[in-house]
Parts: sequence; structure tokens; C-alpha cells
Amino acid sequence: MSVGVASARPRIGLDIGGTKLEAISLDPAGAVTGSLRLPTEPGEAAVLRSSELAVRTLAERAGVPLDGFASVGIGIPGRIDRRSGIVHDAVNLGVRSLALGPDLSARIGLPVTLDNDVTAAAVGAVSLLGLRGTAAYLNLGTGLAAGIVVDGVPWRGGTGIAGEIGHLPFDSAGLPCACGQRGCLETAASGSALKRTWPAGGEHPGRVLLAAIAAGDPDARHAFDRLVSGAAHCVQLLALSIDPSAIVIGGGLRLLGAPLLDGIRAELAARAATSPFLAGAALAERVRLLDGDSPAAAVGAALSADR
Amino acid sequence: MSVGVASARPRIGLDIGGTKLEAISLDPAGAVTGSLRLPTEPGEAAVLRSSELAVRTLAERAGVPLDGFASVGIGIPGRIDRRSGIVHDAVNLGVRSLALGPDLSARIGLPVTLDNDVTAAAVGAVSLLGLRGTAAYLNLGTGLAAGIVVDGVPWRGGTGIAGEIGHLPFDSAGLPCACGQRGCLETAASGSALKRTWPAGGEHPGRVLLAAIAAGDPDARHAFDRLVSGAAHCVQLLALSIDPSAIVIGGGLRLLGAPLLDGIRAELAARAATSPFLAGAALAERVRLLDGDSPAAAVGAALSADR
Ligand SMILES: [Zn+2]
Ligand SMILES: [Zn+2]
Repeated sequence: MSVGVASARPRIGLDIGGTKLEAISLDPAGAVTGSLRLPTEPGEAAVLRSSELAVRTLAERAGVPLDGFASVGIGIPGRIDRRSGIVHDAVNLGVRSLALGPDLSARIGLPVTLDNDVTAAAVGAVSLLGLRGTAAYLNLGTGLAAGIVVDGVPWRGGTGIAGEIGHLPFDSAGLPCACGQRGCLETAASGSALKRTWPAGGEHPGRVLLAAIAAGDPDARHAFDRLVSGAAHCVQLLALSIDPSAIVIGGGLRLLGAPLLDGIRAELAARAATSPFLAGAALAERVRLLDGDSPAAAVGAALSADR
Repeated sequence: MSVGVASARPRIGLDIGGTKLEAISLDPAGAVTGSLRLPTEPGEAAVLRSSELAVRTLAERAGVPLDGFASVGIGIPGRIDRRSGIVHDAVNLGVRSLALGPDLSARIGLPVTLDNDVTAAAVGAVSLLGLRGTAAYLNLGTGLAAGIVVDGVPWRGGTGIAGEIGHLPFDSAGLPCACGQRGCLETAASGSALKRTWPAGGEHPGRVLLAAIAAGDPDARHAFDRLVSGAAHCVQLLALSIDPSAIVIGGGLRLLGAPLLDGIRAELAARAATSPFLAGAALAERVRLLDGDSPAAAVGAALSADR
């Protein structure tokens, strides 16, 4: 691991998701100097092709030859073997196993590193928000997971399960979870949870949830309340285990915006109302929301290339 | 913070609890070279007096003048201000506020540092067990809290609440907790929880619990099962947040011994039976039990004096 002087050449970061690929270039000081989005198609070959196209297009637009860049960092869902650069079981991308690191590197002639998408987003969010010390990132996406960042460096844990708080029991009478347990936090506070508890919301319930609540849909309200309650529990859990100075809410459901942030803060305040201990811990004050258009995972992937 | 070369002089560590004070001397390589126990009496003056007596007696027995030692580290319950060396609200010791660091230092002429007793025990347990990397310590004492140790150094968090997992909700229909919430993990997995759920066990229910279970007492069985279930939840929580390679069970209830360890492992195995994800996380294999006579907090306090 090198945490020395950052490279003097710009870096590229990619965030590969189920529907789109986001790419950014980062100058040596960490500022975003270029960005683009491509739609993604499923499968190993398509993911590799889109990644190459994104890198080449970014470089062309910047008027910089490929070898003018230091590295490419990629944030991608699935199980990541950072050492070999292989991603396994990125289900949403239709990828079973892909040696994306070495294969892309062979095509573009730059070092390529992979990182878990949540870890990358955590590092990027902390950088974009200028946070110092210990910070946590709570990803409310299709699934639920957290990333921990210490002085800009992701906390990787011993065996690759750091931050997998989505699979802690929350509601013992709850729904079966994809992990095989019942009532995990992910069955309350995630996009997949919303789809199950409020099927009327269709494929992307987060996009229509607030309108349905405003129109008086009690099931939408119930799904939102569960989401908020589970997310607040995660905030309390992160605070009372690692005590970060800030906890940033990210993931696709951050697009719920102020009502989500206000809801989480209100739930934390309600918990603290009976507890001087919790009130002193100032949980609500630690919670922040990542901007809706923030390219956090791509930035974090670029930054993590040498960490 | 200094993490450089350890001092070439031996160090002293004290663990001040509600009924006894344990003192050890540690050679520069970290081995315990002397130890003693004193009974404690409540109140600021008594705690200061016992601390001085313990240090002087240890030095005398070792045949080393006081200034032959590098430092004194103290593990003590309550709210600790490490910078000023003041301990507040050590309820079990009858201490409301005591400048134990400066007051003891003035009497013995050595630097004195204070640490939370759980943090000290975590550092000491990791050292005594020879653990490397990231490890967690779960203190099943009168209360419930965890300590996290990274490469021998305690994780202190940003605001002093790191490891306070005892005050996470576990059982929403549960008992009121001293912190003001309901159904905290501490109301299931702690000595105070045993006293409430099994009042027949008297002042020290941990000492008679196994005998009562063996004699067929269903209330004792119920209290034990709640303890095991809460402790297993803590292990899962620590694993899925910080991913330590080992989780050491300590605190007074560790005296329950193999039945406690076996119970926690069985509960973790039951949770993993339906979940390939949890099975892969190998939680049961990470759990260890601190030896009953291990002076972990005193050793950790001595080690933490320069950290
Ligand atoms: Zn789960
Ligand atoms: Zn509590």
C-alpha cells in the first residue's frame, strides 16, 4: 500500500452500475476535470468494451494521450479480488467472472485496479465533502452496506465483510433476506426492500415514493417509514461501534433527498428524546446526504487506485 | 501519540474495579514480571490511596526504586478525560470526579495516564493472546461494551462513544435500559441484565447461574439463553461492521467459561445454518474467551500509557 505523494499525472475513475457507467478524470490535486456517462449492457464482454470506450473517450476529450494518465480505478458491485483484478458475481451487470483489471489494462496500457462500488463511493464521498478523520458512508442502494474511511483510506477489514451491516438482524419477525437470514436491515432499508414492501411502486419505487405518499398511499408511507427506521438504526450502529465524525447517506435512494434526511434525523431525535446518553452522542448532527449528482464512486475509485 | 520504540524501563499497570484493584509490572518486552491485588473501598480518597499503595508495593517487591519505572497506566470505569487525567462518574467506585492522573503522579513522581477499563482490557487481551491486525474485545461485565484494537493500538473514535454497542436496540419490546432507551443489548447480555431477568441469582448471578441451570431452574436457563443470544448478536455486529480477525469475550461473565463460549458459537452456527453468506463469514471461528485469571486490563493500561 502506498500512501505517499499522489501521482503528478491525472487519474481516471469508473463507476460501473447496472444501467450506466460513469467516468471521471481527476487532476493530481483531486479535482474532477472531466466526466461522461455511458449506458451499460449486461455481460462480461459488454462491461469490458464499455470500460475501454469510456477511458478512451475521456482521454480524447481532454486532449491527453492515454499514457498521460497515471491509472484507472474502477468501482464495481460483486465480489472483488483486488490482487488479481477479477470481479465475481456482479449479478446486476450479468457478470459471473471477469478479469477486468488485467483485461482492460492490456487494452489501454495503464494500471487498472478494482474496488467494491460501496467502498469506492465511501472514499469519493469523503473526498468530495472534504471530511477528515473517521467517516462512514451508508449506501442505500439495491442492497444495504456501509463503507468506513479513515484519513481518506478505506477500512478494508480482515476478510472482506467490513461494512456488511445490511445483514444484521433488525426485525426478527421480518422478511426472508437474500442472504438466507430473516429480517436483516437490508429487508427494511434498501431499494429491494421498497420493491417488496410496496410492490405498487414498480421497478424503481424510489422515484415515485414521495409522490405516492403525498397522494395519501398508506403502503407507500409504511415502506418509507421502514426505510427511515432501518437507516436510522444503521446510523446509530455505526456511531456506537466506530464513532465516526460524519455519516454520509448515499446510494440510489439518496435521491429521496431532504425528506429522507429529515426522516432519519427525526427518528434519531425520537430515540434520543428518552436517552441522555444518545442525546449526548449527537447522532442526528452527524448525518449528511450526498448530493444527487455526485460522482462519488468514480472519484473514489480513481483515488483508491494507489491505496 | 507515540508508537515508537517501547521504553527500556518497566511499566506499571493498574485495573481499578468496584471490589478490587489489580496491579502488574511489565518488562520492556511486554511480559508480566509482578502482580498484586488489593481490595478497594469507595470514594475519591480511597481510590487514590489504594493506587499509590499498589504502585509502591509493586516497586518494593521488585526491588526497583519508583524512578526505575517509566510510567503508570490505569484502567478505570467511568468517563475518562485522558488529556487532563480526570475520571468522572465511576459509579461503582463511588467516584464522582477525581484528578487521578495528576494527583497520583504528584505522589509518586511518575507519569500517570488513565484509560477506560474496557479499552485497557481490549489492548491487554490482544497483547496477552498475541493477536495481530484488527481484533475486537467484547466486555460482558456489569455493563456491555466493546473495544477495538488495530495493530495493538486502541481505536478511540471521534467523540468517545466507540465500542458502546451495549446501547443498540436489540429487543424492541424489551426492558428499560439505564441509558433511557428500551431493549438495548445491555439489557440482554450483561451482569446487570442477569440480575434483572434472574433475581433469584442474588448479587453475583454469574457465579451461581450454571449450577442453577444444572439443577433445572427454568428462569436461570432463560437468563442464560438471553445472554448468549445478545452476545452472539454483538459478535455478528462487530464482524459485519469492522471485520476483526478475532473477537475476544471478556468481562466478569467470562467466568461462565466453556458453556458461555460454546453457547455463543452454537447460536452463531444456528444463524449461519440458513445463510451461506454468514457461514462464509466464519463467525464462530473468530470467537475466543479470555482466561479467567488474565490481568488484561492492567496489562493494557500499562501498554497504553504511551499510546
Ligand atoms: Zn441478509
Ligand atoms: Zn441502553
